[in-house]
Amino acid sequence: MMTIEKLLPNPTDPRLSRTVEGVDETGQAKSISVIEERPLTIYLNSQEIVTAMTIGDHPEYLALGFLLNQGMLKETDRVTKIDFDEELEVAVVRTAGVTDVEDKLEKKTRTSGCAVGTVFGDMMAGLEGLSLPDTPVHTSTFYDLSYQINHTPSLYMETGAIHGTALCQGLQVLAYMEDVGRHNAVDKIAGWMHLNDIQAADKVLYTTGRLTSEMVIKTALMGIPTLISRSGFTAWGVDIARQVGLTLIGRMRGKKFTCLSGQHRLVYDQDLSQVPDEDKKMRRKGAQRD
Amino acid sequence: MMTIEKLLPNPTDPRLSRTVEGVDETGQAKSISVIEERPLTIYLNSQEIVTAMTIGDHPEYLALGFLLNQGMLKETDRVTKIDFDEELEVAVVRTAGVTDVEDKLEKKTRTSGCAVGTVFGDMMAGLEGLSLPDTPVHTSTFYDLSYQINHTPSLYMETGAIHGTALCQGLQVLAYMEDVGRHNAVDKIAGWMHLNDIQAADKVLYTTGRLTSEMVIKTALMGIPTLISRSGFTAWGVDIARQVGLTLIGRMRGKKFTCLSGQHRLVYDQDLSQVPDEDKKMRRKGAQRD
Repeated sequence: MMTIEKLLPNPTDPRLSRTVEGVDETGQAKSISVIEERPLTIYLNSQEIVTAMTIGDHPEYLALGFLLNQGMLKETDRVTKIDFDEELEVAVVRTAGVTDVEDKLEKKTRTSGCAVGTVFGDMMAGLEGLSLPDTPVHTSTFYDLSYQINHTPSLYMETGAIHGTALCQGLQVLAYMEDVGRHNAVDKIAGWMHLNDIQAADKVLYTTGRLTSEMVIKTALMGIPTLISRSGFTAWGVDIARQVGLTLIGRMRGKKFTCLSGQHRLVYDQDLSQVPDEDKKMRRKGAQRD
Repeated sequence: MMTIEKLLPNPTDPRLSRTVEGVDETGQAKSISVIEERPLTIYLNSQEIVTAMTIGDHPEYLALGFLLNQGMLKETDRVTKIDFDEELEVAVVRTAGVTDVEDKLEKKTRTSGCAVGTVFGDMMAGLEGLSLPDTPVHTSTFYDLSYQINHTPSLYMETGAIHGTALCQGLQVLAYMEDVGRHNAVDKIAGWMHLNDIQAADKVLYTTGRLTSEMVIKTALMGIPTLISRSGFTAWGVDIARQVGLTLIGRMRGKKFTCLSGQHRLVYDQDLSQVPDEDKKMRRKGAQRD
């Protein structure tokens, strides 16, 4: 682990944000920094899979992580190369052999012509028989990690209107990715984990986004047993978390959180009187329902 | 207009939310109401188009609005029927003749097998030559409408973790839809507008979601000249708004807002000293970067 370089946001990358001129509520000129958004079309070998809207950092991690998190790449598929063409805004993940999903899409597209249903089917299929490791987790770490993530220089601080996801181990933030698409941030972390052979069983995933079915499925397919969010839940997300034994914690702000799945794994070791209520400055600029 | 029944959230619909048992940060049992999330697979005639994650209200409006907002249904396409099968979670929009997009997907799927790129291409293509009506808009209405929307009984108040979009005319909220997918809320309004033959030129669209390229494109294709959000911007969203002459207002909370496109159409008629700073209770539970 110690040899792995941490993966953190780069708010100073000029490709990721831009200053835009406008006016405020009084009609006065005002210029603000806004996040870039660009398409990335992801191919698996010669098969076009999806066009994602992304800020554009780490396209190789995003492409690989997306395919892994959709269940389109199996453990048995050997990734040989990932090509990114900045001009074409295309990332191609290449494998040693033809993947099942290429076969399936080949058939599928002769019938309905839509990959999306297939993709979703694969995601759910990947959950069958999946049971996450029953690793105990200390609530004290949640508060410490939230503080670290909220105080790490980020595109969010620069521009707002962006989601963040962090991979954590104990009190360490190993990887913190941001993106306009909240799922992209998770997928970039999945790609980085795969290429760096990072184990998942002892990790905690923190996200600013809501705990929807897709977020829960991605976390489960990554093999991470604990998912924490500042935001809320969907009923299906909770159902899936319980099915795979994921500890699911939402609405974590200040002292408070709500755990709706896998609570038996929580070790309550935090003196809550020592936790400040949420600093107003830490409330999100884009503050909203996720 | 007066004969049209308003379309508002129905937080009391038992199909849309569920009480779930969990624990809080102290380990005490806690039960909260969470929003439902279910797939809806949308067909255009016999062509499968997409599977959307939705709360499940108004599937017919969502299916029709999605196809309209993706540029997959043209003005010339006559919609004859919309079928919804609750058990199969499928909505089928039927047209008098075969649509261009069915032809295109037919060809497309023989090559790459992915509809997504095509869909996105159609969205952008629909913007060519599009120029929104140059309707003046009074800033005083923004504050009044925000207050109305924030005080309308909603699933958001019940469960959080959900987005809302409202179609407004003057000081009236005509339609307010919510969904786990922020684009679904907009699409449901588009479907409702189409079926009720609601004109767009004098309307304002309010959304809780970020002003991404997709949100701006949908609003532009709906023909609505003003889009307002509590949340922030993306650079591409701003570029597209300027291209089509959309008045784009973001970060609207309390007295404040930022306008990054179409500011020449704003009429500043609000005495800001009369606008309270945002009520803390109005800050979103799921408070986040959208």
